[in-house]
Amino acid sequence: MRETRDVFHLAIPAYDLDDTVEFYVTKLGCKLARRYDDRVTFDFFGDQLVCHLSEGPTTPTPMSELPMYPRHFGVTFREEKDFDALYQLCEQREVPIFSPVSLRFEGKVEVHRTFVVCDPSSNLLEFKYYFDHRMMY
Amino acid sequence: MRETRDVFHLAIPAYDLDDTVEFYVTKLGCKLARRYDDRVTFDFFGDQLVCHLSEGPTTPTPMSELPMYPRHFGVTFREEKDFDALYQLCEQREVPIFSPVSLRFEGKVEVHRTFVVCDPSSNLLEFKYYFDHRMMY
Amino acid sequence: MRETRDVFHLAIPAYDLDDTVEFYVTKLGCKLARRYDDRVTFDFFGDQLVCHLSEGPTTPTPMSELPMYPRHFGVTFREEKDFDALYQLCEQREVPIFSPVSLRFEGKVEVHRTFVVCDPSSNLLEFKYYFDHRMMY
Amino acid sequence: MRETRDVFHLAIPAYDLDDTVEFYVTKLGCKLARRYDDRVTFDFFGDQLVCHLSEGPTTPTPMSELPMYPRHFGVTFREEKDFDALYQLCEQREVPIFSPVSLRFEGKVEVHRTFVVCDPSSNLLEFKYYFDHRMMY
Amino acid sequence: MRETRDVFHLAIPAYDLDDTVEFYVTKLGCKLARRYDDRVTFDFFGDQLVCHLSEGPTTPTPMSELPMYPRHFGVTFREEKDFDALYQLCEQREVPIFSPVSLRFEGKVEVHRTFVVCDPSSNLLEFKYYFDHRMMY
Amino acid sequence: MRETRDVFHLAIPAYDLDDTVEFYVTKLGCKLARRYDDRVTFDFFGDQLVCHLSEGPTTPTPMSELPMYPRHFGVTFREEKDFDALYQLCEQREVPIFSPVSLRFEGKVEVHRTFVVCDPSSNLLEFKYYFDHRMMY
Amino acid sequence: MRETRDVFHLAIPAYDLDDTVEFYVTKLGCKLARRYDDRVTFDFFGDQLVCHLSEGPTTPTPMSELPMYPRHFGVTFREEKDFDALYQLCEQREVPIFSPVSLRFEGKVEVHRTFVVCDPSSNLLEFKYYFDHRMMY
Amino acid sequence: MRETRDVFHLAIPAYDLDDTVEFYVTKLGCKLARRYDDRVTFDFFGDQLVCHLSEGPTTPTPMSELPMYPRHFGVTFREEKDFDALYQLCEQREVPIFSPVSLRFEGKVEVHRTFVVCDPSSNLLEFKYYFDHRMMY
Repeated sequence: MRETRDVFHLAIPAYDLDDTVEFYVTKLGCKLARRYDDRVTFDFFGDQLVCHLSEGPTTPTPMSELPMYPRHFGVTFREEKDFDALYQLCEQREVPIFSPVSLRFEGKVEVHRTFVVCDPSSNLLEFKYYFDHRMMY
Repeated sequence: MRETRDVFHLAIPAYDLDDTVEFYVTKLGCKLARRYDDRVTFDFFGDQLVCHLSEGPTTPTPMSELPMYPRHFGVTFREEKDFDALYQLCEQREVPIFSPVSLRFEGKVEVHRTFVVCDPSSNLLEFKYYFDHRMMY
Repeated sequence: MRETRDVFHLAIPAYDLDDTVEFYVTKLGCKLARRYDDRVTFDFFGDQLVCHLSEGPTTPTPMSELPMYPRHFGVTFREEKDFDALYQLCEQREVPIFSPVSLRFEGKVEVHRTFVVCDPSSNLLEFKYYFDHRMMY
Repeated sequence: MRETRDVFHLAIPAYDLDDTVEFYVTKLGCKLARRYDDRVTFDFFGDQLVCHLSEGPTTPTPMSELPMYPRHFGVTFREEKDFDALYQLCEQREVPIFSPVSLRFEGKVEVHRTFVVCDPSSNLLEFKYYFDHRMMY
Repeated sequence: MRETRDVFHLAIPAYDLDDTVEFYVTKLGCKLARRYDDRVTFDFFGDQLVCHLSEGPTTPTPMSELPMYPRHFGVTFREEKDFDALYQLCEQREVPIFSPVSLRFEGKVEVHRTFVVCDPSSNLLEFKYYFDHRMMY
Repeated sequence: MRETRDVFHLAIPAYDLDDTVEFYVTKLGCKLARRYDDRVTFDFFGDQLVCHLSEGPTTPTPMSELPMYPRHFGVTFREEKDFDALYQLCEQREVPIFSPVSLRFEGKVEVHRTFVVCDPSSNLLEFKYYFDHRMMY
Repeated sequence: MRETRDVFHLAIPAYDLDDTVEFYVTKLGCKLARRYDDRVTFDFFGDQLVCHLSEGPTTPTPMSELPMYPRHFGVTFREEKDFDALYQLCEQREVPIFSPVSLRFEGKVEVHRTFVVCDPSSNLLEFKYYFDHRMMY
Repeated sequence: MRETRDVFHLAIPAYDLDDTVEFYVTKLGCKLARRYDDRVTFDFFGDQLVCHLSEGPTTPTPMSELPMYPRHFGVTFREEKDFDALYQLCEQREVPIFSPVSLRFEGKVEVHRTFVVCDPSSNLLEFKYYFDHRMMY
């Protein structure tokens, strides 16, 4: 568990701030905290996500070709219904789904359900639910 | 605040797993959760950090030339003494310091103290303390 | 989530303090905190409601003609059984019901159950339950 | 105390949604949750504030002439430093101050510090700190 | 510690319900929950106090002659400032003080500060603060 | 709810300290905190119960003739299974049952399940479970 | 309940530090905190377990002959599913099981489910689940 | 941190149950939970300590010759005042002190204050306070 009043913060690239707000707030249901000319911050499931305006590639990589490793981020839910609710939101609001719900590490203690979505700047977001919560780390 | 029993997870590159464990556990005081041939996971201040074994650059970039933007991550502490304790640990244990403690956004409500360290795979870690905790997002 | 030890406070008009106490305490099951000649305060589901003695209209508006917008207030419950328990209380104790339980925003992620009651001073109170708790804001 | 996972919600009039977002997010430091054509919602210190687009008066009332009673709302802080931090933010960010910090009910057990600000739609927001926390209701 | 969502309840005699409400709500700052013809209940520092209308003695015992043992009740505060705040309230609001603040068990680990007040039905209420919180039981 | 780190304390008569310990610890499953020549204290479901050695009546009143009003005490459980578990314990350990489980205030919002047991000094202990937890006060 | 931010710590013998890490981290899913030449520490279900390098017996005792009394340690889970999850982990990861799941004190209020495993240094670990949580002490 | 509603349990030898109760309850201020012919259990700072009646050595080892390693147990306090309060209790109540308060690992991040007491069955109990709470594991 975490010292709950601390927050994790992550800085990632954002090609366009309006698209980024549209994705994280209107689509994903996070909350907008602060916006500047060169960045925007969100209350991302209780942590801070800082999206820095960055130059995108001349030719964006198709979503299906984006590499899952080594970089991605997201939330691991303690309650399975929170995992399910978010996936349902992603379907209902047509969030670009990189990888639909699947099981990873099947047969192992660290088995978990996972899905991955993609934001407008090719950042991959993975959401997880472990059947054995002690495997969340 | 966060739904405290959820955890944030972040996947980052790691050039060598032993160096990574040495840095995050022996130096930074995090806890090792799971280790595989190709990755190692840590309880990083209560969240999950997954370090994926990746090929590093042929010529590593000198720490001073590493770009702070757009990618870095870390923890924002609610209690100033936790921020100070970690900085003291970094000094005592000679953690590579990319940027010593300084004030950002001075004169603004979102003013905060910050320092940045560097892990063995050129990942930059920033730790923050906001004087107005409502600015943590 | 809220910094739980803080409380929200709201001041609203009350045409008669005895009727107001009768409604909020005897009917709605809130707790009376402080009473003065010109106001009475309640622990309203954990927040502070301050009812200020005010002159009512010469001809009170029939309940059915009261405007829902732009002003009303209430509680959004995290647990559906609390929403149901309160509605059951309102029926059992014959609290004036402005709008019985219905679904709003059906088909959307922010779909929620809602009902509205009316206090003796024509204040409308709405109680809600969102199926996706992340939509509570 | 409140069942912390519940939230209080309040609906108030808003003459212009952009001005409202500017006030509550950029000035007051709340978080924007959802925006529609006719309303915008905020995570207001952990509770839900819903601002409904409404027609304002042809001639807006000067702030100094706005009536404090019977309607206003706000937050009562449990920690005095949170009260002070918010007042400092209001001064730094030039939030329109209707009534600067003062003591109410001096000499009584329910004595408290209070200040009032005004939003772009003439809604008055009062923030309080009680020296005896049992008087928060 | 207690399973916090449970409450302790105590039933005591009350000679007159109005005097009882006046004492517990207006004087002592507790909250009135439910009132019937023959009893009244209070949220007494988070627990339930039920005052049953009972016949008092023909000649009430002077407060100074009331026996402290074997029956009395009250609250032991974890925080000394809560103990002090309540004593200050009792002085300010002229609550009948049976025994002013004193030290008991001085020189022992279980040393504590204590004061006792008296309600209108000759019930004695003791409030305590232990310097070693492990001695609270 | 209560400021959880505070505890309620109640002082009651006890005719024999050994019988009292036998009842509260061996039978009822509370924990013994401190014992002196003239009193014994228990962690009673998280609150403090202080049993003062007192002279009992020459002829003890039969349990069935003990008056429920105006004095008794106990715990109101938030979770029904805790209520049931305690009743099961009382049956299994043959705790003297003054009044078996029954419903009170049936048909009303404040309906609750209740049972009453009797300690060796004729103190009556009532345990309750309210279907609507807002009625716990 | 415990003052949750305190931790229990236990020091036990360990014949080989690598075997010990293999057992507690790779098998049992605990987290490695600190390692020295002569000891290793773990976050053991939230408490601190310190394994001190010690000389083992020339002829190790067969597991089946190890004495359960008077020394063993472990965790009592509040939630039955945590007990079950751990047992499932032990089976899946082939943790040496000294005593499979069984019921102890059947027919008594303090009845509980229990299983015992054995670490590489002949330390016996018992995990329990009580049906009546008040019997956890 | 720990899943707070779980408890750690430890079984240790006890040469005489009365002496054991005297030490843990009357001296150390723990609470007695259950007593049988062959064992006694305590709420030991929120965890379960089970003392099993065992045959002691014919010639007890003098306290000063008892080995600290590899076996001892205790509590690490999060708050320094709890550590100090316990040491003060041990002095006041003349608990046998094996090792008075001292600093260990001075100059290191894992520096902590510690003292050790000895129970009637030669079990050594160590209490700790770490200046950097992240070092508690």
